[in-house]
Amino acid sequence: MHKKIESLQNPLIKQLIKLKDKSRERKKTGLFLIEGAREISLALLGDYRLKTLLLSEEVDITSQLDSLNIASDVEIIELSKEVYKKIAYRESTEGLIAVAYSLPLDLNTLTFKTDTPLILIAEAPEKPGNIGALLRTADAANIDAVIIANPKTDIYNQNVVRSSVGCVFTTQIAMASTREILTFLKEKNIAVFGAALTASVPYTKVDFKQACAIVMGTEATGLSDEFLENTTKNILIPMRGKIDSMNVSVSAAILIFEATRQRNL
Amino acid sequence: MHKKIESLQNPLIKQLIKLKDKSRERKKTGLFLIEGAREISLALLGDYRLKTLLLSEEVDITSQLDSLNIASDVEIIELSKEVYKKIAYRESTEGLIAVAYSLPLDLNTLTFKTDTPLILIAEAPEKPGNIGALLRTADAANIDAVIIANPKTDIYNQNVVRSSVGCVFTTQIAMASTREILTFLKEKNIAVFGAALTASVPYTKVDFKQACAIVMGTEATGLSDEFLENTTKNILIPMRGKIDSMNVSVSAAILIFEATRQRNL
Repeated sequence: MHKKIESLQNPLIKQLIKLKDKSRERKKTGLFLIEGAREISLALLGDYRLKTLLLSEEVDITSQLDSLNIASDVEIIELSKEVYKKIAYRESTEGLIAVAYSLPLDLNTLTFKTDTPLILIAEAPEKPGNIGALLRTADAANIDAVIIANPKTDIYNQNVVRSSVGCVFTTQIAMASTREILTFLKEKNIAVFGAALTASVPYTKVDFKQACAIVMGTEATGLSDEFLENTTKNILIPMRGKIDSMNVSVSAAILIFEATRQRNL
Repeated sequence: MHKKIESLQNPLIKQLIKLKDKSRERKKTGLFLIEGAREISLALLGDYRLKTLLLSEEVDITSQLDSLNIASDVEIIELSKEVYKKIAYRESTEGLIAVAYSLPLDLNTLTFKTDTPLILIAEAPEKPGNIGALLRTADAANIDAVIIANPKTDIYNQNVVRSSVGCVFTTQIAMASTREILTFLKEKNIAVFGAALTASVPYTKVDFKQACAIVMGTEATGLSDEFLENTTKNILIPMRGKIDSMNVSVSAAILIFEATRQRNL
């Protein structure tokens, strides 16, 4: 038999609300929330471990547990409708939230299947929707890793998990400072292509078949000087419009799929 | 001297609030609102005509009027801070809103500079953010037109204007039913490439140098059967991830920039 919690005053519930809302709490505890059956199964496929599974009293617990493959050491807790609603992020709730252990995101956790990995680096991305779109593209192109430089947003933020439609669990991710990343890429002999607003090399003229990282800056200010001055080459998507302002996840996708096109020739 | 309005009960103010919020009112009157100096000047460049220019009492009217090139028949109205705030969409207001005449969006208004136009067709796009991103990409690639099939969202919606960062004014746009669009393209001898989720032709194998239209379906349901069955070819972005779900504006950009790459070879 599993526990049932019906009080918003329960200390565990108070901690869960903090995990939902506070990046600091997620960092301190190494835990984060995953909402939805699909997202939870993707996390399990991505080698995430669950600590607790929370189910709304409104769902059929047995059938949910049968469809997910939950390890025996995961604590199952039933929540009253009211308590569940307080922790859930979505309005159309699926009745299922997991508390999961976050993974270490150090550069040295990255492993590459080939000696010509393709890596996407995003510098200081802030909007969860943009990070989610980048991760969806990274999944679809099956690139080797996404590295976030000088992160401003915690990837275990519910908005990132949701807008990535679970791709945050299917792609290798690391976070580090710009300096650490540049050292790492140099050591591994990985070419660094910085997406710049002014640069002499159009992206279609670059050889993406080699081991390489594509580095995207922010929409507001572009790539930092620290990157721009330390890349192998800075590259440009030639634009010929009146405004020439593309979304950062759109620009990243154009570069990544050009790399994929070249690699499949 | 110009009028000043200080009462929320003023009939004009009531109409402006309707124009802001109601697509039906925009359709009925053929008017819409444009907020911000940059957006207004882009609209003027794009041959939109203004009816009225509304200025918050907080801005320096003379300098604003000098920087924009406002026709002499445009009525200038000053608004009290409170009234302006009621009509403004943005929180960080620039103090400047125009009432503009919308343009006809019929297919027969489209003109092409070459006999090999590149057109983007989006079927029933709904999210203003997606429409905005599509228009930003259309501007950056300088394609000939964007056609919206079976529109669900009015392009003169403030969210579209804003998320397009004004690209709604820099690109030729038409709206029509799927049937009308297919007839139009056939008459003009324009090839139709439908982006499909399952299709035999990878997009990199298609000749985009000919006159052609790229047709995108919705993220939720993909392209309608009516399009799928009447295209020249259905094309596919090969995906190799675990989830394979890209944002519709991201997929459109990959296809458009492959077309641009081929055309520049």
